[in-house]
Amino acid sequence: MNTFGRIFRLTTFGESHGKVIGGVIDGCPAGIKLDFEKIQHELDRRKPGQSKIVTQRKESDTVQFLSGIFEGKTTGASIGFLIENENQKSKDYGHIEEIFRPSHADFTYQKKYGIRDHRGGGRTSARETANWVVGGAVAKQILSDIKINAYVSSVGDLFLEKPYQDLDFNQTESNIVRCPDQEVAAQMIEKIEKVRKSGDTIGGTVTCVIQNVPIGWGEPIFDKLHARLGQAMLGINAVKGFEYGSGFCGAKMKGSEHNDLFNVDGTTKSNLSGGIQGGISNGMDIYFRVAFKPVATIMQEQETINSKGELVQMHGKGRHDPCVVPRAVPIVEALAAMVLTDFNFLQNSKTF
Amino acid sequence: MNTFGRIFRLTTFGESHGKVIGGVIDGCPAGIKLDFEKIQHELDRRKPGQSKIVTQRKESDTVQFLSGIFEGKTTGASIGFLIENENQKSKDYGHIEEIFRPSHADFTYQKKYGIRDHRGGGRTSARETANWVVGGAVAKQILSDIKINAYVSSVGDLFLEKPYQDLDFNQTESNIVRCPDQEVAAQMIEKIEKVRKSGDTIGGTVTCVIQNVPIGWGEPIFDKLHARLGQAMLGINAVKGFEYGSGFCGAKMKGSEHNDLFNVDGTTKSNLSGGIQGGISNGMDIYFRVAFKPVATIMQEQETINSKGELVQMHGKGRHDPCVVPRAVPIVEALAAMVLTDFNFLQNSKTF
Amino acid sequence: MNTFGRIFRLTTFGESHGKVIGGVIDGCPAGIKLDFEKIQHELDRRKPGQSKIVTQRKESDTVQFLSGIFEGKTTGASIGFLIENENQKSKDYGHIEEIFRPSHADFTYQKKYGIRDHRGGGRTSARETANWVVGGAVAKQILSDIKINAYVSSVGDLFLEKPYQDLDFNQTESNIVRCPDQEVAAQMIEKIEKVRKSGDTIGGTVTCVIQNVPIGWGEPIFDKLHARLGQAMLGINAVKGFEYGSGFCGAKMKGSEHNDLFNVDGTTKSNLSGGIQGGISNGMDIYFRVAFKPVATIMQEQETINSKGELVQMHGKGRHDPCVVPRAVPIVEALAAMVLTDFNFLQNSKTF
Amino acid sequence: MNTFGRIFRLTTFGESHGKVIGGVIDGCPAGIKLDFEKIQHELDRRKPGQSKIVTQRKESDTVQFLSGIFEGKTTGASIGFLIENENQKSKDYGHIEEIFRPSHADFTYQKKYGIRDHRGGGRTSARETANWVVGGAVAKQILSDIKINAYVSSVGDLFLEKPYQDLDFNQTESNIVRCPDQEVAAQMIEKIEKVRKSGDTIGGTVTCVIQNVPIGWGEPIFDKLHARLGQAMLGINAVKGFEYGSGFCGAKMKGSEHNDLFNVDGTTKSNLSGGIQGGISNGMDIYFRVAFKPVATIMQEQETINSKGELVQMHGKGRHDPCVVPRAVPIVEALAAMVLTDFNFLQNSKTF
Repeated sequence: MNTFGRIFRLTTFGESHGKVIGGVIDGCPAGIKLDFEKIQHELDRRKPGQSKIVTQRKESDTVQFLSGIFEGKTTGASIGFLIENENQKSKDYGHIEEIFRPSHADFTYQKKYGIRDHRGGGRTSARETANWVVGGAVAKQILSDIKINAYVSSVGDLFLEKPYQDLDFNQTESNIVRCPDQEVAAQMIEKIEKVRKSGDTIGGTVTCVIQNVPIGWGEPIFDKLHARLGQAMLGINAVKGFEYGSGFCGAKMKGSEHNDLFNVDGTTKSNLSGGIQGGISNGMDIYFRVAFKPVATIMQEQETINSKGELVQMHGKGRHDPCVVPRAVPIVEALAAMVLTDFNFLQNSKTF
Repeated sequence: MNTFGRIFRLTTFGESHGKVIGGVIDGCPAGIKLDFEKIQHELDRRKPGQSKIVTQRKESDTVQFLSGIFEGKTTGASIGFLIENENQKSKDYGHIEEIFRPSHADFTYQKKYGIRDHRGGGRTSARETANWVVGGAVAKQILSDIKINAYVSSVGDLFLEKPYQDLDFNQTESNIVRCPDQEVAAQMIEKIEKVRKSGDTIGGTVTCVIQNVPIGWGEPIFDKLHARLGQAMLGINAVKGFEYGSGFCGAKMKGSEHNDLFNVDGTTKSNLSGGIQGGISNGMDIYFRVAFKPVATIMQEQETINSKGELVQMHGKGRHDPCVVPRAVPIVEALAAMVLTDFNFLQNSKTF
Repeated sequence: MNTFGRIFRLTTFGESHGKVIGGVIDGCPAGIKLDFEKIQHELDRRKPGQSKIVTQRKESDTVQFLSGIFEGKTTGASIGFLIENENQKSKDYGHIEEIFRPSHADFTYQKKYGIRDHRGGGRTSARETANWVVGGAVAKQILSDIKINAYVSSVGDLFLEKPYQDLDFNQTESNIVRCPDQEVAAQMIEKIEKVRKSGDTIGGTVTCVIQNVPIGWGEPIFDKLHARLGQAMLGINAVKGFEYGSGFCGAKMKGSEHNDLFNVDGTTKSNLSGGIQGGISNGMDIYFRVAFKPVATIMQEQETINSKGELVQMHGKGRHDPCVVPRAVPIVEALAAMVLTDFNFLQNSKTF
Repeated sequence: MNTFGRIFRLTTFGESHGKVIGGVIDGCPAGIKLDFEKIQHELDRRKPGQSKIVTQRKESDTVQFLSGIFEGKTTGASIGFLIENENQKSKDYGHIEEIFRPSHADFTYQKKYGIRDHRGGGRTSARETANWVVGGAVAKQILSDIKINAYVSSVGDLFLEKPYQDLDFNQTESNIVRCPDQEVAAQMIEKIEKVRKSGDTIGGTVTCVIQNVPIGWGEPIFDKLHARLGQAMLGINAVKGFEYGSGFCGAKMKGSEHNDLFNVDGTTKSNLSGGIQGGISNGMDIYFRVAFKPVATIMQEQETINSKGELVQMHGKGRHDPCVVPRAVPIVEALAAMVLTDFNFLQNSKTF
């Protein structure tokens, strides 16, 4: 299934080492004046080679729009777009043509489809997420009043302890790891550097805070706002978990501690609910946390098997991220923006 | 949205205090001989009043099938079913007609729809999950070779530390809290009892293990197996988080620790991946964990607001669960069974 | 697929000779005060036994609503409903248990599903259309400003020649064949009577006129208003064709004759387009025509085969319609109302 | 809605006068060796400028595939493709920038979206159908055993009277009007020539015959095989009607004439049903007829209005088809192929 969303829909295609990747945005309202610089800016936040702690592959990731836009405004027609793959060094992957890399999708794709484009993981590559960032950047312009801020909240066992309320989201982009606390950011960068030098990789988490969502977005029973956000985030490469509001900590608490008491204006004194009740936004901040496993490609010797079922030694090659969370920040924001845009239109029909 | 699934679809209706609840199962293959006792057994595992640590409300939760079955076998036609609400004491809810209960969906439903059936939370009640158990019980019979075992893995801060490999799932139903370790089960029961007596409630987690899933189930890019499982679980009332495989712990690890190395037969020595790679089952056990917040209705005095926006005192009434996880176990299994059944049919088309 | 619609969705179940049929209406907006008498009135227009020219089977076709309505108003929750089958004389069908009736779906269902509920055709029976009338009756109340009028425009080779503009739709219900021209109606009734007495059946057409649809309803490219109307009508039992506006006659014309020239206010001087341009309503009347084949069950001796592949003689039994079009009128209106309601919500999002 | 199909899905974009048009094919099985010449051949059958009786616009309509194919075989990944617009003479349309052409979608698009790309009708142009032909050409290769043959069965009031059984489909491509009867073809060509010289246009019909469809394809209740075919055909620009099997003629007949009696092998002696019973294929030939209105753009003076609501004179310019049916033949086949492919996968799940 290569389509995301019900009303605001993104359909994508492309392999990491093909000529281009791209997609079609369907369900975008007409008459929206698009700010193309902002869209490109989102792609620049995700692109490889942007700093020393991410993959050194170079891609300009320039998006070309092919339809659905007339004199700078959306027409309501489907919006086709392309991003060229400028830097596909297939030879980097020649050595894995016959190999199933540990904790990669090589094995499952081969078994499911009986064929696979092994170059850079083909369709399974996180290259695909560039398409999502384009869709999300358009969605953000539809949701202009809503603020979506993601940031790196942990790298390995190093956590940003401060609650989001104490952070200045304007600081997120001021450092290469995208942690709004400069002190913790410096430690995270150092940690990633150390891991990278050892030829290893490390996991981390991204926290996302969504503000100014009107009351009433979300479609119970089977299309709850947090369930759709969860499905979207779990679809990102390397994601192993999702929690919103009190999350897993909430499972340790008592009702008397966990309940969010109301103020007379309908806001709540606390917000362990994470801005959602019964799958519907309640007007408070929506926040959630996404767990990313360490990148599977490491620059160390590993034993694995080939398609003949023989044990072989492999050594990671190519240019990979020692830690994905800095580049995952704009991806998390993009998916959140698309989910919210979908509900924006769904709730127009004022129905479950 | 009251329909769950793409090919195997469950569409539901009903409020906790209406005459009945029910649904329609669509996409069930023809010719399946249904074991109605097994279906009723799943409902009995979920029903209220089954033990001292769950709500004392009494419901027989007897399902009646209305169509799609001829001489005991499915015909391929849609299967309609009903469950009567025998025990709706609407008066239990008279006191909350005008009140928005803290951390309930009263407020969001009222604001979204401008009207609500306040009796027992109406459509927002976990009563709805009985419908899911029916759909899941049918799905389990389609997936007869696949073993789905959920159990309570924590209550509050009391955790079952043993890995699932060391547990005997046959023990899960041998105690009222549904924890397969008798010793930990006894402590959990005691904990819930204590909480209940104090008029409070407590959260917990449910772990689910799925065995014998063939290699190749799951539909990347936007319909990954774990993403669909996550969406399903996050749709359960009171759920705040979902993780699979290494989950949030995986985010603390290094690639060299996290990678699952292959055996020559394509199985893996470790299984931090949780049986899924790139959104596709790899033949290893699938396992995930679901976090439930404490039930919001407590038998203590709380301050809240009414529909006029006035502060009022409220005191929980009615018969509620001090802890939902024991009754959540069959619900988690049911949703997992429906998601897998959907992919069972989708993978027939051998496509993304 | 037992679900109709994208946003306003009807999901149905039930066999003609089961205990009940019913469905779930999903996506109905909240706060709509339902007029239950009007809903029952639509069912009465479809029900059997209402006149001498339709089947003499007796059914009260009383609909019971089970959910989604509180104090007479919709709540936005899914609306479950049931209609009892009071008059299932299964014995009427004992004689066809092993027989495949000519031009019925007995053969295809048996081959596709390997099993079938032969009683009255089971799921294939037009009994199902009673569910559609319920969904349509609710949709009509959502679309209160839009006028949907269907009527019988031909029986066999007897045609109502007058254009719809010369008809008084208030006359449609004044005769049992539902033709608004009393003179032609009398001839049609006589024709059907004659056919019935000869133990035969006859086909006919229904024309539907939809007025006051706002400009802009319909979702190109693949969800054009007339394409969705066509799909809906073609789904009715016995329908063999659909045309709108100039229809098949338009295929004989020249552009200079066929073009609808504009008036300065954007209305058109002629309306061969049938109120739709590019799949979007243009504010003019929408009209279309639906062709129904003669009912396959005739009270005459026919040769056919049984499930063993043996030639056998059969003679129609039971109580069947000599001509379906009089009872098809409310069904055509119901489906049109549901399609329009769907677009009513879709166009809120102002997108393709 | 720019996506066609449920399992085998085509999502498209592009305006007639943009740089390119294109789409994404999703749900194509893996491992299919594609014959690219055959795909291009289908596009050549549709392309403009191929004969004197179609538009003289020149387009090579060369399709470029961008993904989902590895070493000539499909991988199961989504297949992106592009077709360049080589011949967009926007100036041809300068004169209609402010004008609403009669019986075109200019008016409805402007009113629905508040903006439109007026060049060549933008998204409303039949240029889009080139995308469909690509999707259909891929679908045809999946359905290699099924024969889909469409042909022109009438131009204006000139009809090919012979039943399809008396035709040699190999003759269809032997003349420029695509009528398999050479004599009638010559008359049709002459008729179109005459109409073209008079600056006028003319309608016609296309008949399509589908052979070798296995018994059991189609998904009642709301996804009947003929209903899906009808929706697809009604989505083609200029289509006003669809009928299958006996069609509108069947509405004039009696049951005793219309019933298709069985042979002992389950085939039928006649086939007025058109190869479908209850929405499911019965193994007999499927055939249907599609009515196309005359092209609205005529080379004659017409009065119309502009966006200011003023009456203005307009005279058709540009290069248009005097009759669309010759070029519609491959489009009808393409859509039929995609619908059948969808059901091919759906029926794998052996469900409604």
